[in-house]
Amino acid sequence: MPRYKLVIEYDGAPFCGWQRQAEDLTVQGAIEAAVTRFTGEDARLTCAGRTDAGVHAIHQVAHLDLTKDWRTDTVRDALNAHLRPLPVAILSAEIARAGFDARHSAIRRHYRYRILNRRSPAALTRAHVWHVPWALDPDLMQAAALPLLGRHDFTAFRAAECQAASPVRTLEQLDVARVSMGLHEEIVIATSARSFLHHQVRSMVGTLMLAGSRRVTADDVADILAARDRSRCGPMAPACGLTFVGVDYAEGDAPDAPAGK
Amino acid sequence: MPRYKLVIEYDGAPFCGWQRQAEDLTVQGAIEAAVTRFTGEDARLTCAGRTDAGVHAIHQVAHLDLTKDWRTDTVRDALNAHLRPLPVAILSAEIARAGFDARHSAIRRHYRYRILNRRSPAALTRAHVWHVPWALDPDLMQAAALPLLGRHDFTAFRAAECQAASPVRTLEQLDVARVSMGLHEEIVIATSARSFLHHQVRSMVGTLMLAGSRRVTADDVADILAARDRSRCGPMAPACGLTFVGVDYAEGDAPDAPAGK
Repeated sequence: MPRYKLVIEYDGAPFCGWQRQAEDLTVQGAIEAAVTRFTGEDARLTCAGRTDAGVHAIHQVAHLDLTKDWRTDTVRDALNAHLRPLPVAILSAEIARAGFDARHSAIRRHYRYRILNRRSPAALTRAHVWHVPWALDPDLMQAAALPLLGRHDFTAFRAAECQAASPVRTLEQLDVARVSMGLHEEIVIATSARSFLHHQVRSMVGTLMLAGSRRVTADDVADILAARDRSRCGPMAPACGLTFVGVDYAEGDAPDAPAGK
Repeated sequence: MPRYKLVIEYDGAPFCGWQRQAEDLTVQGAIEAAVTRFTGEDARLTCAGRTDAGVHAIHQVAHLDLTKDWRTDTVRDALNAHLRPLPVAILSAEIARAGFDARHSAIRRHYRYRILNRRSPAALTRAHVWHVPWALDPDLMQAAALPLLGRHDFTAFRAAECQAASPVRTLEQLDVARVSMGLHEEIVIATSARSFLHHQVRSMVGTLMLAGSRRVTADDVADILAARDRSRCGPMAPACGLTFVGVDYAEGDAPDAPAGK
């Protein structure tokens, strides 16, 4: 019973998130339906990072077990054919090494958040950015990110409905960069951790936005974190600005961040 | 009667091109309607590069004359408010220098064409690329671009309905670059000229695609150009991969390519 490892890209807009639901269109549900149409089997997918409604992915990783030993290129192409016209693409399919689990073997997840920071609204990128029309200071945002790095109780940056057993996570990266392309001004936030709490990235981004607006300081962010005070953290940044960009696996697996492939 | 110079971004997907039409939604028609709602005036826009249906712009330039001397920030913000929710944004509005004409003062137009060159279909970028699923050789494409540079009769790369008085144009740039981001492989073609014939960029891209597929050589491209033989040039590349990225004006005007602002 071979286990297949899939690399998946999707536009989150039409989907109610990754996780299969009885009624609503989800990425997992769409791919599993394509698997059934292709193989006749009812296989279940397990992914590295279950994304919320509206969140995109350029390098999601998932595994599934099939009874038949298909050519991996056939798996990729047949699933893509059956997924049409949904905005989901299987970028690669390969036979997973023994013991590989897309979720439990992952040692680091990478996300990117895009803020369009200019007075005028988004036109060409409107489905992929959060538009903040007043000027943000990326240096203040980077300073406010520093207290969040490392191992902390992230209760302040956690969704009320988060089901994780522990609110403690170790944040490995939270970098703020300004990217200018003429009149197109973006602030791009890159973050990575072994795992994140539900809504943690979007809550952190909302608080960094407040810092960039001079409404909270880096010291305030340290206080909010220490006090585990959800009421003082910023607004949750909208889903459409967030993209799952990659995942690292333990030694023995090839690196799986896009830059590494 | 002040003349305003506007910089405009738009997603071409919902529009039947730039040029106003009686029945269909166009970029010019949408902005002129916004001007009327804002000022009560029936002003006409003139742009640097009239784009076809489905073609995008990140830095289109247009001018319009209004009787009243508005604050330029007010013009920008009011037009953006009246354009909502269409994917058009006025990035800046300023008072044009005496004699400025967005179309006739332009000395160079810049376009970019994006080809997604991988086996799997586009998901996140599907509205902004041409998907070519077989491997293209960018070096062969660049070699095939060289015969097109300079001053030529571009009849072979011209739409049947092109209304330009002369088919002679001077192509200043036609560069082919491969851009890899993990499993996301793009070929990006950058081109510039004082002006282009109708469908010239998309016709040239279609022929470069054939060259990258080893179906025509650089010598063939030189022959097609010399013979003015439309039947031998490649398929016209789809509109959604094309973006108007900037325009240069003669000395006395600030450079208007995005990189220069």
